[in-house]
Amino acid sequence: MQIAIPLFDRFTALDAVGPYEVLSRLPGATVTFVGEAGGPVRTDTGALAITVDRTFDEVPEPDVVVVPGGPGTRAMLEPAPIHAWVAAAHASTQWTTSVCTGSLVLGAAGVLDGLEATTHWASMDLLASLGVTPVDDRRVVVQGKVVTAAGVSSGIDMALWLAAQIAGDDVAKAIQLGIEYDPQPPFDHGSVHKADPEIVAFLRQVVVDPAPAS
Amino acid sequence: MQIAIPLFDRFTALDAVGPYEVLSRLPGATVTFVGEAGGPVRTDTGALAITVDRTFDEVPEPDVVVVPGGPGTRAMLEPAPIHAWVAAAHASTQWTTSVCTGSLVLGAAGVLDGLEATTHWASMDLLASLGVTPVDDRRVVVQGKVVTAAGVSSGIDMALWLAAQIAGDDVAKAIQLGIEYDPQPPFDHGSVHKADPEIVAFLRQVVVDPAPAS
Repeated sequence: MQIAIPLFDRFTALDAVGPYEVLSRLPGATVTFVGEAGGPVRTDTGALAITVDRTFDEVPEPDVVVVPGGPGTRAMLEPAPIHAWVAAAHASTQWTTSVCTGSLVLGAAGVLDGLEATTHWASMDLLASLGVTPVDDRRVVVQGKVVTAAGVSSGIDMALWLAAQIAGDDVAKAIQLGIEYDPQPPFDHGSVHKADPEIVAFLRQVVVDPAPAS
Repeated sequence: MQIAIPLFDRFTALDAVGPYEVLSRLPGATVTFVGEAGGPVRTDTGALAITVDRTFDEVPEPDVVVVPGGPGTRAMLEPAPIHAWVAAAHASTQWTTSVCTGSLVLGAAGVLDGLEATTHWASMDLLASLGVTPVDDRRVVVQGKVVTAAGVSSGIDMALWLAAQIAGDDVAKAIQLGIEYDPQPPFDHGSVHKADPEIVAFLRQVVVDPAPAS
C-alpha cells in the first residue's frame, strides 16, 4: 500500500507528520512525501523543512492520499499542479484525505463537489466559498472514500480511524499504544466550541497559520 | 528565546514535530533544528527527512532544549557528540526536556543524575539501566527545569504545559486552539495501563521504534 503526502511551500508540519507517524506503522504500507520537485520544502514558520522524495509524476497512483494544510494552501486556490495530481490520483485511490486547510486543496481539485467536509475552524467560510458544505462540529468527516479532518492535530485521530479501516481495530490499537497516544492536554481549550470567546476572537484576527490571508 | 531540537539518525518524527508545532507559536520564540552536521536527517522509518539547519557548534546556548527519541537513541548510549552538546547547553538552559526515548540521551549526558524521569513505556528498564529512577504512571515528569515526557505523542502535552510556564496560560490556550488540539482518538488504547495485554506483549516483542534493540 502506497500512502502519498504532498508537500508545498508553507505547509503546517503537524498536519503531515501526525498522519505519517500513524500510517507509516501500518504493516505493508509505505509513506512517500511527494511534491512538484524533489528536495526540502519549508513549513509555515520557516523553521522546519521536510524533504520531498518523489515528484508528483513519479507517484501517479497512490492508494491513499493525505493532503496537509497550512497558509500555503491560500496560494493554491487558483489552478496549480497539486490539484491536477490530486484529481488524477483520486480516480484510483482507496482513500483521499486531508487535514486542516488541506481540504481547500481537495475542494479546488474538485474532489469535494457535492460533499460535506471539514477544515480548520477559522477557515470554514473559505471552504464554503469553494462550493463545499462545511461541517464545524465533527473532528473527522467521512464521505465514502473521502475523509477530511479538522485543524492540525486532528490528523492523528483521522489516521487512527483510517488505520482501523485499512488493517482492523487491533492494528490501529497497537499503533495507538506504540505512539503512546493517551492525550492529556493541560487545558480543555482545543475546540472553538469550548474556548474563551476572547481567545477565539484574538486568533481569528491576528493569527497565524490557518487564518485566511484575505 | 531560542528553542533547539537536536536531530540524529533514526529519530521518531512526531517526538520532534509535536513540540515544534506548539513551541514555534510562542511569541518571540524561534525553533532551530540542530545536529552534528547540516542537511537532511532520516527518521526511524526512513520515509521522512527533516533538515538540520544549524550544527551543534552554532547553537551552544539555547534557552530550551527538546530531545526527541527513536531507535537511534540506542546507538547513543555510548558517548556521542550529542551528549557533550546537551550537557554543555544544560548549564545555561531555562528548560531541558525530552520526549519518548530522548530521555536516554539526557540520561547518558548526565542530566538526569539523581532525578526521576519518564520515557516510552517499553524502554523503562533501559532508562533505569542508566541509573535514572523511571516513572511509568505520569505522562510528563517535572524535576526543576528538567522535564521528560512519555512516548511519542506525549510531546504535544508537554509542550503545551511548557508554553504555559513560559508565556502564561492564555498563550498556551491560544496555541491549543490554533492547532485544534481537542483529541478524540477512536480507541482508548494509548497507555500500557489501559491496553489489551496481548497487544502490549506483541509490541514488546516485535516492535518497533521504542523497543530496545537488545
